[in-house]
Amino acid sequence: MYSVCVRDHLMIAHSFTGEVFGPAQRLHGATYVVDVEFRRRELSPDAIVVDIGRAGDALKALLAGLNYRNLDDEASFRGRNTTTEFLSKEIFDRMVSRLRAGELGDGASGIEAIRVTLHESHVAWAAYESTI
Amino acid sequence: MYSVCVRDHLMIAHSFTGEVFGPAQRLHGATYVVDVEFRRRELSPDAIVVDIGRAGDALKALLAGLNYRNLDDEASFRGRNTTTEFLSKEIFDRMVSRLRAGELGDGASGIEAIRVTLHESHVAWAAYESTI
Amino acid sequence: MYSVCVRDHLMIAHSFTGEVFGPAQRLHGATYVVDVEFRRRELSPDAIVVDIGRAGDALKALLAGLNYRNLDDEASFRGRNTTTEFLSKEIFDRMVSRLRAGELGDGASGIEAIRVTLHESHVAWAAYESTI
Amino acid sequence: MYSVCVRDHLMIAHSFTGEVFGPAQRLHGATYVVDVEFRRRELSPDAIVVDIGRAGDALKALLAGLNYRNLDDEASFRGRNTTTEFLSKEIFDRMVSRLRAGELGDGASGIEAIRVTLHESHVAWAAYESTI
Amino acid sequence: MYSVCVRDHLMIAHSFTGEVFGPAQRLHGATYVVDVEFRRRELSPDAIVVDIGRAGDALKALLAGLNYRNLDDEASFRGRNTTTEFLSKEIFDRMVSRLRAGELGDGASGIEAIRVTLHESHVAWAAYESTI
Amino acid sequence: MYSVCVRDHLMIAHSFTGEVFGPAQRLHGATYVVDVEFRRRELSPDAIVVDIGRAGDALKALLAGLNYRNLDDEASFRGRNTTTEFLSKEIFDRMVSRLRAGELGDGASGIEAIRVTLHESHVAWAAYESTI
Repeated sequence: MYSVCVRDHLMIAHSFTGEVFGPAQRLHGATYVVDVEFRRRELSPDAIVVDIGRAGDALKALLAGLNYRNLDDEASFRGRNTTTEFLSKEIFDRMVSRLRAGELGDGASGIEAIRVTLHESHVAWAAYESTI
Repeated sequence: MYSVCVRDHLMIAHSFTGEVFGPAQRLHGATYVVDVEFRRRELSPDAIVVDIGRAGDALKALLAGLNYRNLDDEASFRGRNTTTEFLSKEIFDRMVSRLRAGELGDGASGIEAIRVTLHESHVAWAAYESTI
Repeated sequence: MYSVCVRDHLMIAHSFTGEVFGPAQRLHGATYVVDVEFRRRELSPDAIVVDIGRAGDALKALLAGLNYRNLDDEASFRGRNTTTEFLSKEIFDRMVSRLRAGELGDGASGIEAIRVTLHESHVAWAAYESTI
Repeated sequence: MYSVCVRDHLMIAHSFTGEVFGPAQRLHGATYVVDVEFRRRELSPDAIVVDIGRAGDALKALLAGLNYRNLDDEASFRGRNTTTEFLSKEIFDRMVSRLRAGELGDGASGIEAIRVTLHESHVAWAAYESTI
Repeated sequence: MYSVCVRDHLMIAHSFTGEVFGPAQRLHGATYVVDVEFRRRELSPDAIVVDIGRAGDALKALLAGLNYRNLDDEASFRGRNTTTEFLSKEIFDRMVSRLRAGELGDGASGIEAIRVTLHESHVAWAAYESTI
Repeated sequence: MYSVCVRDHLMIAHSFTGEVFGPAQRLHGATYVVDVEFRRRELSPDAIVVDIGRAGDALKALLAGLNYRNLDDEASFRGRNTTTEFLSKEIFDRMVSRLRAGELGDGASGIEAIRVTLHESHVAWAAYESTI
C-alpha cells in the first residue's frame, strides 16, 4: 500500500457541551495542524498517489471554509460538539467530496482510503480513517 | 475508525542481557516519550473517543509506577530484557487494566484497540498495538 | 551562559482589531505551545539553573489563569490585541512575578534572563526575551 | 503487533517527466528523512523485533547506494519518475533483500511486514508498506 | 526583544567544489526547511512585530526565485559553493531587500534584526543572523 | 553571525543528590538528544562554518565516551550532580578540546562560540553556550 500525506493548519474558536469537558465547556480555541494521508495499492502512470501540489491546494481550500471562525456560530455544526475527533471526520468527508468532484486531478481516481489527523497540541491528536 | 492519542514521558535506567545488545549490556538509561492511541469505530454520545483529560491523567498515573527507577531492580521484570518493544507491550497491558477498571470514564467502554509507541531518541521508536 | 527550558500549552479564543489582521479579525482561536527558557551565568550549588519540576509546575499554574478562555472577555486585555508576540510578553511578566514571589524555589534567585516562545502552528511562532 | 522503527536521511537530485509535476519537471533535489518500521507478531527470545543497531546500520548502508547522487543518471531508474512514493517502494525492496541476506541478524527472521516513510519536507511525506 | 518567525521550504539541486565536501562534490540535492525570524525591541501600534501573513507571503515569493532549480546553473551563484550557511545569508539578504522595498508593510519598519535558519535534515541546520 | 548545528544522542543512567530532585534522587536514566551549534562571523574560503561531516563525526566520538554508562560510576563525575545543564557544559568543554586538537579540520579555526543543547524529553531541555 502506498501513501502520500500533506499538512496544513486551521485556527478556530469553539466550546463544548457536557460535564466531561470540564473547563473546555467555556469558549476557547485551538490550532489544528492537519495531516491528510491518501492511500492506494498501485501508483498512477506518473508514479504518484496523488499530485502533492494539488492535494495541498485542495486541503488549503477546504480549510479556508472553517478557518478563523467560531464553530459555535456555524449552522452546519448546530448542536454538535466539534471535538478534535469529530472535526477529523468532517475534514475527511469534505476531502472525499472534493476528490469525487475531480479537484485532485484524474490521477487521484485510484485513491482507496484517506486518514485525517488533527494535532491539537504537542501532547494530543485525533484522527479519522476509512476507505472511500 | 476514530483515534485519540495522548503523550507523556518516562525516564528509567536498565541493562540488557545478550550479546546482540553490545554496549547496551551495560547499565544505561532512556527517556521514553510515550504515545497512547485509543481507537473505536463510533464516537460516544459526547462525540469523543475518550476524554483526553482523563486519558492523559491515566497515562501519567500509569507511568508514575515505572518512572525514575532502575528497571533491573523491579521484581516484575526479573529475568526480562526491558527493551523498548517489551515496554510498549507492558504499558499497553497496564493501560488496558486501567481502562477495564473504569479509570478512563464510562465513555471509554467503546474503545476497541490501543497502540502504544515509545520514542527512545530522535532516530528510533518501538510500538505495540492490539485489539483489547 | 546556562539555560533550562520547560514546555506546556494553552488553548484560547480571541479576535483582533485592525485591517492588517484580515480574516483574523473574526473570533477564532489558537493552541499555543509555550516554551519558557531560564538563563543564568553560573549554576546553583545543586548544579541546576532552576528545578525543572518546579519550573514546569509554575508554568502550568500560570497558564491555568489564561487557559480555556475567550481573551476578548478578560478585563486585563480590554482594548488590546492579544497577538502571539503580545502574549509572549504577558507570560514573561507573569513568570517574573512568580519567580520573584519565590515560587520557583530559592535556587532560582540567580536567574538573569527569561525567553518565552509561543508556537502558534507548525509554521509560525513568536517570542519575548529580556533580562529580569 | 510489535514495531521497531529506525530513521536516517538521504540527499539527492532528480527531475520529473509529466505536466502534472509543474516546476518539479526542472532538475531540483530533496532531503528525504527515511523511517523504516519493522513489524512482527511475537518478539524474538531476546525480546526484540530487530536489533536497532543492526537495523540502523543496514539502513545507512542501503542509503549510501543512493545518497549524494543525481537519480536521473542512475541506470536502474532510467525512464522512471523517482517520486517520493516510488522511492519509498525502492527502499522497501532493497531493505527486504538485505533482510533476506541475513544482514539484520538471525533474530530478524520473524519480521512479517515493513513500512518505509520518506519525509520530503515539514509538510509532505510518502510511504510504502507491505508484508514481506 | 520581541521575535516573530515564519517557516516555508525549498527543494534544490547543487554540487560543491573542494575535497572537504567528500561525496557532496557530486550533483545532489536538498530540501531546506527555512525559518525567518524578525526581531524588534517594541511592538507596532497593532501589537505585532510584523504581519505574519505578509511575512509568510514574502518568504514564499522569495523562495520561488530559488525553488525547483539546479543552483549550479544560476548565474548569480557562479563559482560559489551554495552551502547551507551560504544560502542562509543569501536568503537573509533577499529578505532585507524585500523589507526595505515595503513588501512586509509599513509596520515592519521597526524591525532591527533577522535570523534565517535552514534545516537540511533532522540532524543538521545552518543559520545567519544580523542587525539590518 | 553564521551558525552550523549537528545533532546526535546519548543514553545514560544516573542519580541526583539533594532534596530538590525529589524522585530523581533514585537511580534512573535519560536519552539526551544533543545539538552542538558552532558560530563564527565569517565563513571559511570553502563557504562553511565547519565541515558538517567532521562535526558530526567528532560529536559521535565525543558521545561514545559517555554513552551507555551509569554516570554515577564515572570517576570524573564523582560527587557531582550530572544534571542536564551540567552535562551541556561538560560536552561543550570536550568539544572545545577536540576542536583545539584539530579534529574538526583546519577550517574550524575560525569558530568563535559554541552552544550545546541537551533535549531530555519533549517538554524540557538545557543548554550551555560561550565564546571559546
